[in-house]
Amino acid sequence: MTDTTPEQLDRVLDAAVAAAAVLRDRTPAERAGHLRAAADALDGAADRLIPLAQEESHLPLPRLTGELKRTTFQLRLFADEIEAGAYLHATIDHADPGWGMGPRPDLRRMLVPIGPVAVWAASNFPFAFSVAGGDTASALAAGCPVVLVAHPGHPRLSEATAQVLVAALEGAGAPTGVFVLVEGQDTGRALITDPRVAAGAFTGSLRGGRALFDLASARETPIPFYGELGSVNPAFVTASASASRAEEVAQGFAASMTLGVGQFCTKPGLLFVPADSPVPALVAERLRETAGAPMLNERIRGGYGQGLASLASHEVVEVLAGSVDPDTDPAPTLLRTSAAEVLADPRPLTAEVFGPAALVVEYTDDEELLAAARVLEGQLTATVQGDQGDAVVPALLAVLSERAGRVLWGGWPTGVTVSYAQQHGGPYPATTAVGTTSVGTAAIERFLRPVAYQDLPEALLPEPLQDANPWSVPQRIDGVQHP
Amino acid sequence: MTDTTPEQLDRVLDAAVAAAAVLRDRTPAERAGHLRAAADALDGAADRLIPLAQEESHLPLPRLTGELKRTTFQLRLFADEIEAGAYLHATIDHADPGWGMGPRPDLRRMLVPIGPVAVWAASNFPFAFSVAGGDTASALAAGCPVVLVAHPGHPRLSEATAQVLVAALEGAGAPTGVFVLVEGQDTGRALITDPRVAAGAFTGSLRGGRALFDLASARETPIPFYGELGSVNPAFVTASASASRAEEVAQGFAASMTLGVGQFCTKPGLLFVPADSPVPALVAERLRETAGAPMLNERIRGGYGQGLASLASHEVVEVLAGSVDPDTDPAPTLLRTSAAEVLADPRPLTAEVFGPAALVVEYTDDEELLAAARVLEGQLTATVQGDQGDAVVPALLAVLSERAGRVLWGGWPTGVTVSYAQQHGGPYPATTAVGTTSVGTAAIERFLRPVAYQDLPEALLPEPLQDANPWSVPQRIDGVQHP
Repeated sequence: MTDTTPEQLDRVLDAAVAAAAVLRDRTPAERAGHLRAAADALDGAADRLIPLAQEESHLPLPRLTGELKRTTFQLRLFADEIEAGAYLHATIDHADPGWGMGPRPDLRRMLVPIGPVAVWAASNFPFAFSVAGGDTASALAAGCPVVLVAHPGHPRLSEATAQVLVAALEGAGAPTGVFVLVEGQDTGRALITDPRVAAGAFTGSLRGGRALFDLASARETPIPFYGELGSVNPAFVTASASASRAEEVAQGFAASMTLGVGQFCTKPGLLFVPADSPVPALVAERLRETAGAPMLNERIRGGYGQGLASLASHEVVEVLAGSVDPDTDPAPTLLRTSAAEVLADPRPLTAEVFGPAALVVEYTDDEELLAAARVLEGQLTATVQGDQGDAVVPALLAVLSERAGRVLWGGWPTGVTVSYAQQHGGPYPATTAVGTTSVGTAAIERFLRPVAYQDLPEALLPEPLQDANPWSVPQRIDGVQHP
Repeated sequence: MTDTTPEQLDRVLDAAVAAAAVLRDRTPAERAGHLRAAADALDGAADRLIPLAQEESHLPLPRLTGELKRTTFQLRLFADEIEAGAYLHATIDHADPGWGMGPRPDLRRMLVPIGPVAVWAASNFPFAFSVAGGDTASALAAGCPVVLVAHPGHPRLSEATAQVLVAALEGAGAPTGVFVLVEGQDTGRALITDPRVAAGAFTGSLRGGRALFDLASARETPIPFYGELGSVNPAFVTASASASRAEEVAQGFAASMTLGVGQFCTKPGLLFVPADSPVPALVAERLRETAGAPMLNERIRGGYGQGLASLASHEVVEVLAGSVDPDTDPAPTLLRTSAAEVLADPRPLTAEVFGPAALVVEYTDDEELLAAARVLEGQLTATVQGDQGDAVVPALLAVLSERAGRVLWGGWPTGVTVSYAQQHGGPYPATTAVGTTSVGTAAIERFLRPVAYQDLPEALLPEPLQDANPWSVPQRIDGVQHP
């Protein structure tokens, strides 16, 4: 992997700006065609890409096959979405001399592409959150060129994926410069501070993401930076669920926390259980049956070891299963503390440890459970294992809705489907942009900005705002949605 | 005016947090009732409030009467909007074992209030962008308590308006703490850095707004800060418009730039005309007939004098009308330079001067006009006076759509209606949040965040996400919008 030079980056960004101008005049059908061509080409290249991914990520074949399917499904779902056109939020207010605050002119508002977007690939999903992943798909769907910073954890796969993607986009008639892969940490810093870049999107560590967010915010012209930075994804087991289905809960939790060697943004890292619950021992039993597995790369392996050691060294934490001084392929590890200790020192005890480790937190009553939930920081997900009649449930759901982007009932947070209602985001530090999602069709909104046109003749209006509505997009007309 | 003490602010914020929790459980009808009660009470207090506004702002009676009407209209429009419920973006994906990327769970997403909001009042609209103005109305509509920092330019009006507002909200059953007025610069800094505050909204100067944006972004937990900071609002006269209706264009421009003594965010401060155009002389003539008038306050008067002197002292700028060393009540002032000079030194020549001054920029041909448009920074508005057949128009509209939140044809940018399609925002420095608007019904989106619920039983779901849809809100169900 060779770092992109400043001169190369300069050309890449000029090309991205030029591509943005070309894309603006393309129809939704044309842009949907770009995305579908990319999906087809990636599916067609599976035989070449998947072995590279296996080699560089150490992830098992079924996982990678499923992840590539997710990636191309996502591109096609965005293609459908931009053809449907609701994402434009086309709104038409005809001139109205009788408008309540005084005569109003003809005003028409829609969303337009924000401009060239810088995307940082993540290491843990070498397809779905990397070169052709969700950020790239949603930015391209919005009509924005993408400059993608490859993740050094899978360099050959990144370059191979980019080649397939670029060839497919160009073959489908997309302008040169609509997607370019670049490499290097310095390149990333140069990108986020370049005036030609209009937004950034990132999935990765709190430290790395915050540094980029700070650069984006400190620019002379600040730009939005959509960082998905980390989450400990607490799960809460009520007394009744602990009593009635401890085995089922333990099995589900153990499977979720060890999936992908614990290397998911949504891995549950905290398990709140009643003080006398059989669940922790059952989870520990399951984990002892689960073999260690290689992590994505040495850097992540090192970070896991440090984070786990730091958590385990806390005087109120004990080890129930696994090892805090693990081998190369870490065994799943379960730790234990109490809710009283979490309330006394929340930050170190509720910090994310990226890898196959989790902390059991024992609580004495519902009041303590709610108090502990209230000290948690922003989360991607929060999970409740309870029964509808549990007195604590309404209050617990209310507290979790304030702190998490997705609240689950009776399931587990790993496995993030791509759909219309998905929300993969949450208050900081889960993300740097609490109002947004990086997964699901709403992810496109991050790369759009509104423009209103006042008193423009029909012929000069963008198609979605014309009365004739040649693209047949949904329009809100004088306050009423059609259709 | 007495600064709020840190102890008082602490109590205010605790009350705001408590109010947020109460508001979450109120129905849209109840919350709409709060807004309508506030509107009725403000209308009812016009006889007391308007004389105070006249005294403190020096603005004429018809303007203030119209502004109060706008303010209460806005509160009622948001009341209608939250009862209609489309703003929740309720989205339901039923569980689907056949979903293209693999079985999907039941997922339901909606927008929820972001939490307590800090709002800074502006000086130039003592009703519509102050205590009960657009930021307050849209935050309350979203279900967020508001802590409002009063503007020192109209302290007695601020306190009187707050008393009316608080009494009306409490009378309508809103929780204590849902709206509180605070005072002082230090109070503002304490607010934006307090962990209990979830977002900030501001209309005012670039310097003040950027300082608050920097504080909001540098927090341990950064929060969104919606600053509307300034804009020079360029207007472009094509050769044909200049030739065919110079008098009409000159009259419209002169009226727009002097409206409210030039103290509008949308005052047109740049007028691009062909080099031989009669428009500048005609504007100058109009301005000479326009009497000077007192500005809002001494601080703004001082800033205007400095900004104008700085612009006029540029060696390529000449004075066509008015005075660059004006009296207490400044006479409208017109300056002139060329597009070539703007291209050579864009920043100082295109900076906003808040007050009744504008700079004419003479261009030699369409190419130079487009080049000059391209060096402009982000704008709230951009205006074209042209004819549909003008060759330059499509390219000019494309350039302006990239740089401005609202693009006008044949009108003038002052007078910002409150409606569904309004967009009052734009790329930095027009605002700090390019994806948002501070006027119009879409302003509510700034104070909401998405939450998804996975596999929740119907009885535990928020009303807008229930299949039974008890509030009859629009829902997107399995990808299809109803209604």
